[in-house]
Amino acid sequence: MADLSTCAPLTRQSVIEAHELIKSKIHLTPVLASTYLNQLASTPREISTGSDSNRGPAKPVFRLWFKCENLQRIGAFKARGAFHAVEKLKKDPTFIEQGGLSKGVVCFSAGNHAQAVALAARESNLPAYIVMPETSSPTKIKSVEGYGAALTLCGRFQREAVAARIIEKTGARLIPPYDHPDVILGQGSVGLEMQSQIPKLGAIVVPSSGGGLLSGTALSCEGTGIHVYGAEPEFEGADDGRRGFLSGQRITHVASNSIADGLIGKLGEYPWGIIYERKLVSMMYAMSEEEILAAMKLIFERLKLVVEPAAAVPLAVVLYNEEFREMVESTAGEEGWDVGIILSGGNVGAERISELFA
Amino acid sequence: MADLSTCAPLTRQSVIEAHELIKSKIHLTPVLASTYLNQLASTPREISTGSDSNRGPAKPVFRLWFKCENLQRIGAFKARGAFHAVEKLKKDPTFIEQGGLSKGVVCFSAGNHAQAVALAARESNLPAYIVMPETSSPTKIKSVEGYGAALTLCGRFQREAVAARIIEKTGARLIPPYDHPDVILGQGSVGLEMQSQIPKLGAIVVPSSGGGLLSGTALSCEGTGIHVYGAEPEFEGADDGRRGFLSGQRITHVASNSIADGLIGKLGEYPWGIIYERKLVSMMYAMSEEEILAAMKLIFERLKLVVEPAAAVPLAVVLYNEEFREMVESTAGEEGWDVGIILSGGNVGAERISELFA
Repeated sequence: MADLSTCAPLTRQSVIEAHELIKSKIHLTPVLASTYLNQLASTPREISTGSDSNRGPAKPVFRLWFKCENLQRIGAFKARGAFHAVEKLKKDPTFIEQGGLSKGVVCFSAGNHAQAVALAARESNLPAYIVMPETSSPTKIKSVEGYGAALTLCGRFQREAVAARIIEKTGARLIPPYDHPDVILGQGSVGLEMQSQIPKLGAIVVPSSGGGLLSGTALSCEGTGIHVYGAEPEFEGADDGRRGFLSGQRITHVASNSIADGLIGKLGEYPWGIIYERKLVSMMYAMSEEEILAAMKLIFERLKLVVEPAAAVPLAVVLYNEEFREMVESTAGEEGWDVGIILSGGNVGAERISELFA
Repeated sequence: MADLSTCAPLTRQSVIEAHELIKSKIHLTPVLASTYLNQLASTPREISTGSDSNRGPAKPVFRLWFKCENLQRIGAFKARGAFHAVEKLKKDPTFIEQGGLSKGVVCFSAGNHAQAVALAARESNLPAYIVMPETSSPTKIKSVEGYGAALTLCGRFQREAVAARIIEKTGARLIPPYDHPDVILGQGSVGLEMQSQIPKLGAIVVPSSGGGLLSGTALSCEGTGIHVYGAEPEFEGADDGRRGFLSGQRITHVASNSIADGLIGKLGEYPWGIIYERKLVSMMYAMSEEEILAAMKLIFERLKLVVEPAAAVPLAVVLYNEEFREMVESTAGEEGWDVGIILSGGNVGAERISELFA
């Protein structure tokens, strides 16, 4: 990882510069819309309200815009942060002096970050050492090997230790999955693209785990008037971001088996600073497994897009979270809101799809 | 349907005019590519060749371009033909004189054509009578109702009789699913778009059932030097197009239960004239159920797109049909070919996806 002292400040301008640096290496992914989903989201939910309730279900009006990061290189937004981290490293004098170009980079990840670092390293002819848990999906393992990375499989809780040993032995630099300014600034480029692709964008709903994508997107919106919201699974405490946001204290331990397996990590320190301390995220919402699955089905059936469960959480918030829907009704009124939804990734195998929809 | 006497000649110019007429009503669907699928398609297959074989597997070189008609309105290319048929009707003096604008249109279909006609009629404020077999998927039935069409459910083999009764009673005009010049010219617009979207397009592989899409695409390529190939399932004789193509005699009865349920109809007369008699299609290929399913899985896992099984047949040809691959090797040599693949539709429910991938 680039020395922290060499990192750009965490500002919208730095996101713009990060985007300049990587835009020739990533896809400008399309934005899709669906008349059906707009109607569905703009229809009041059939919910039973308490007998002493003064009001029925919320009546928000939505125009939804789906940013297809499942069509990004390696099938997820993670390519953005990995390419940016590698490009910044290549400009870091210390890295060069220490022979970094031949020593390479290392990362540990069970998923999309592993593929992203392997790809970004290959395109810069840097050696890449990837540490993955043995339980990773065979598809992802094969994909990392396909990019020519040196792969080390390890036990589920040994990833950091194994990576540390590789670093000691090879001198390679660590590229962490989310808790680093260069990674956050790279992920934020998705928000900039949405601002140029979507007319009158009023808000963006973003899946949140470590918070790299959420905090990067929030930085990209600073000063624009666009509201940014985080979306998490609530199962077995995976809503650490929301709980921390409401209590004012970052939560540092999470162990959930949510179907949204891309979102079970804990919010990182840098993201927390942007999301909570700087108040660049307006609110965090958490959704049930059933709601996430229902949203995922709609994305398959109506948008014709393959997404992993994590990518369906923002649509679940829009369709099923009454607190969010009431907020949109009172904020945007009858005119309604243009809301961007980040479909963060599509890396889910056919067998897993079959299990989820059975 | 517009009187045949009022139809434009079946030429590339007529496809261009059809495209002009409908392009504000349809999506210009994106074209996607995949480095992985290019590599896979350009890798010789591991096949056992006979001991007296002089050669191993073919070594074709592909650059594949996927035309995303699954992202078309109603989720399939059928919107093109339906919009064109309706627009032509609205310009037909006889139709107007006979009160057609208030009498409306009728069609029979279990699938995408029903949704396409319902949508096209609604957008022109024409009444639409849709006849669907009772066995149609609930999703498709709901979708047709959602477009405000008058729906009649009937037994599997009663569709034409029921439609005839509706025509007699209401005076509505029939819009057939494929065997009419206006429908064929509308479908052909997809080929024109591909010619403008794909650099150095050498060939297009097209799913074929009734042959509206295949013959329309072939018309759009006439005189351009672009080769057009048809792709069918072979299960239980669904390869009627190929068998007719090889024997010189159109086959008029098909009854197959291929998983590619969009491709089990028989080739129509107008399509046959274009495909076989005018030789605008170079060859037809037929694929097994296993090969179609394998290609469908790759489209889900690698392109992150939801497609119905019918839409996967062209990729199956490219990856697994040795006759096709040998032809590409000998035609395009080491330089290789830019081959367009039409992903014809994405209307498949989550439950069916689950069954197919189980």
